[in-house]
Amino acid sequence: MASISIPFQKLLQRGRELSLLGATGGLLGWDQETLLPPKSHGFRAEQSAQIAGIAHHLATTPEVGEWLSACENAKPAFDGPVAACLVRWRRDYNRATRIPVKLVEENERASGLARSVWARARKDNHFASFAPHLEKLLSYARQMADLWGYSEQPYDALLEGYEPGWTTLQIETLFAKLQPRLMDIAQKAFALPSMPSRKNLAGHYPRAGQEKFLQSLLPKIGFDLTAGRLDTSTHPFCSGLGPYDTRMTTRYDESDFMVSLYGVLHEAGHGLYDQGLPETEMGTPLGQAASLGIHESQSRLWENRVGRSHSFWKAWWPELIRAFPSLTRYSWEQGWLAANAVERSFIRVEADEVTYDLHILLRFQLETRLVSGDLKVCDLPAAWNELFQKLLGLEVPDDAKGCLQDIHWSLGGFGYFPTYTLGNLAGSQLWQAARQSLPELAVSLESRDYHPLLQWLRNSIHAHGRRYLAGDLIQRATGKPLDPQAHLSILEQKVKDLSA
Amino acid sequence: MASISIPFQKLLQRGRELSLLGATGGLLGWDQETLLPPKSHGFRAEQSAQIAGIAHHLATTPEVGEWLSACENAKPAFDGPVAACLVRWRRDYNRATRIPVKLVEENERASGLARSVWARARKDNHFASFAPHLEKLLSYARQMADLWGYSEQPYDALLEGYEPGWTTLQIETLFAKLQPRLMDIAQKAFALPSMPSRKNLAGHYPRAGQEKFLQSLLPKIGFDLTAGRLDTSTHPFCSGLGPYDTRMTTRYDESDFMVSLYGVLHEAGHGLYDQGLPETEMGTPLGQAASLGIHESQSRLWENRVGRSHSFWKAWWPELIRAFPSLTRYSWEQGWLAANAVERSFIRVEADEVTYDLHILLRFQLETRLVSGDLKVCDLPAAWNELFQKLLGLEVPDDAKGCLQDIHWSLGGFGYFPTYTLGNLAGSQLWQAARQSLPELAVSLESRDYHPLLQWLRNSIHAHGRRYLAGDLIQRATGKPLDPQAHLSILEQKVKDLSA
Repeated sequence: MASISIPFQKLLQRGRELSLLGATGGLLGWDQETLLPPKSHGFRAEQSAQIAGIAHHLATTPEVGEWLSACENAKPAFDGPVAACLVRWRRDYNRATRIPVKLVEENERASGLARSVWARARKDNHFASFAPHLEKLLSYARQMADLWGYSEQPYDALLEGYEPGWTTLQIETLFAKLQPRLMDIAQKAFALPSMPSRKNLAGHYPRAGQEKFLQSLLPKIGFDLTAGRLDTSTHPFCSGLGPYDTRMTTRYDESDFMVSLYGVLHEAGHGLYDQGLPETEMGTPLGQAASLGIHESQSRLWENRVGRSHSFWKAWWPELIRAFPSLTRYSWEQGWLAANAVERSFIRVEADEVTYDLHILLRFQLETRLVSGDLKVCDLPAAWNELFQKLLGLEVPDDAKGCLQDIHWSLGGFGYFPTYTLGNLAGSQLWQAARQSLPELAVSLESRDYHPLLQWLRNSIHAHGRRYLAGDLIQRATGKPLDPQAHLSILEQKVKDLSA
Repeated sequence: MASISIPFQKLLQRGRELSLLGATGGLLGWDQETLLPPKSHGFRAEQSAQIAGIAHHLATTPEVGEWLSACENAKPAFDGPVAACLVRWRRDYNRATRIPVKLVEENERASGLARSVWARARKDNHFASFAPHLEKLLSYARQMADLWGYSEQPYDALLEGYEPGWTTLQIETLFAKLQPRLMDIAQKAFALPSMPSRKNLAGHYPRAGQEKFLQSLLPKIGFDLTAGRLDTSTHPFCSGLGPYDTRMTTRYDESDFMVSLYGVLHEAGHGLYDQGLPETEMGTPLGQAASLGIHESQSRLWENRVGRSHSFWKAWWPELIRAFPSLTRYSWEQGWLAANAVERSFIRVEADEVTYDLHILLRFQLETRLVSGDLKVCDLPAAWNELFQKLLGLEVPDDAKGCLQDIHWSLGGFGYFPTYTLGNLAGSQLWQAARQSLPELAVSLESRDYHPLLQWLRNSIHAHGRRYLAGDLIQRATGKPLDPQAHLSILEQKVKDLSA
């Protein structure tokens, strides 16, 4: 074993170096979204490109390949977690070495610049100013897809970067089944004679009260605020900047405290996953998240299964009243109803659970066509609006509420969107399994004891890092492959509960 | 010229790469002081060490030496600003190549860790927990001094990093002359029958009012808030994180708005210098500050010459009253008196102008002895307290108010302190020269028009970057070499004014 332990040590060390650089690049990005002075976006794009280039160089030097080969050919062969690390590292290495460092830098620079152009274009409702940047980022994405290679279509190669193990065709098949079911559930909800509305809880909820409430909620669900932060940004996100530095952002609406409440529960779901990754494995695949879909399963589980439950509203109602005394005119049941209202709406991040995946299906259909070239960038707004009418029955009034609303494409993140729906399905399936595994779960949640649920997620998901592919991880955690039925049943039941 | 233009282009490119990395390392440090979650300091130290190591590697690769030699041997020889760049680059390269990258990383890691230990030790008033870190940082400093080389003593080599052109002996000679003069002026001030006190303006000044006032003051003096920020930290500082990203921090005391007012005027002096460096020269010595002493001359000029003047208090009084209506019970003259009170005090950053340099002289005497080994770390508190009694006539009650008060040694910044006094002297001399050059200066300042002064500083100091050594820059800007007389005359006059 001595002869192969050195290459493995070398891989470990390189992995740690890449983790440090990744965290530094992450800080550059986090700061860009939260604090960066407006005039400095160009310089920041250069900084990000440089760090991405250095990291790519370190990830792809030939000696990494040699260390990998030495470990792969070791006798006796490695097994267990170490063998899993080698498989993941090999896949990362082969994928990375296909892309020249120059392209990585150019793509990073272009997306760094596109991000601020997009923010301005969205504010000004001016798609034309963003269009050339989108065109450029698509051309980089196509170049990279060609270099990575794919069996059927370029989008496969992009998807592989976010959700390894899935092909475009598999997603298409899954989504084709989902679409009529989701539309059917949504139609049933829209047809209810007395559907509540989120506006039912309209009032004035000072930001200071929202912040105070969230700062008391976060430790209670298990988020360690001495190893993370909550800040403000236009576009809420969660960024893991190291084993003890998980940063979430949110935004505040003083007429609707649920914007920050569900924003934070969502990001905290991501944050709990990041904080639950084994710190001792920092730098190896075992210390990394399994996939974006698994990440999203955590955020949606905390946001929707926990945060939109009866027990959450009942248990937190006294605390909510302390934060917002004007709530006394409502009951916790009215709060629950407002939080679960199913409504047609334009903005994905504010969409209810039933219509949410229709927003994703739309984006997936459009971005596969953008990547293949079947849909031209200049035709995107019209295509968006047409499909939106078909899926959600609303006429999109402007691009800010339409195809300019999401940050992802400005980051060059083509292939990212389907992971949201995969996450929704996985989150519901995990929830079902947790309820079966923990007979006392309902009782503990009613008493605001989130420890058993978090511990179950830690053991079933977090502790494994990237050891298993997402599909295998779900199989292990729930005893069956990913299946949309759990999610659809939950949505159907919810619509029934709303009409009760 | 074609044959040598390529090496020069290479040097330019490497310089830009180092600027980007420097800004990224700077962000890691800025974030550590302002936002970093407590548990993440160890990881952050690793990140900072990595970036410092990469930068050091890039700065010292042999091809840099080859590009430099090619440019130095060019026929016809370069002259003007390009020749100045080559001189500075050569000096940087020769100095950097003497230090192995491993030592750079270790020192960076150690200081990253020491910083948080120091902050805790200061809070807990517990020197013993910081002592081993100080010992370690001193040993790295001595190692580096030995590698850099020096003619007389190791401290020379450290000083060269902050204030090129000065030797320890020169500073000792200068400070030996200053000490009796400063003590004499201070004694005169203490002996005044009716010395005002900063406490004369005691009251309640809500933080929100302070922030609003500062946000209106900063653009007025020329600080571009779209290319910089003002945030909060325990230890105020200013960090130039790129040509359009100058970040200042301050702290707020609701019983004394002058803490943030003078803190911000000081940091804004640094910030105006950073924002005034020629952006087109980013990556070359012409886009960098001349020295720490010159940097400090700018901060002290804005803080003391501008901010503690009659005209400042008179001109800003109506705005101060708008921010803090309770000030109406005072006159602007009382404000001026309180802001200029001369008082014995323990904390350097809160010290008045007359006693300030005595705090620096103390630190210089102690750190030269720490570096030489003449003073042991364990004996530092007693030595500090004894010298403090001698220079400032106060008995230090605890180490938090004594040798633990400053961040510098925890950063490994031995040789940094004397630049504060050099900056004070230079700031006063520049002020004198500006008044002679701008006959209308007094009138413009009374009407809160800071543009003529800023423009004079831009032309005399900022525009030259690091083209000249500090001494030559002062000679060019004021027509004479650095001389303490301007500063001492100003202090003497101030004490007279206070008794008037």
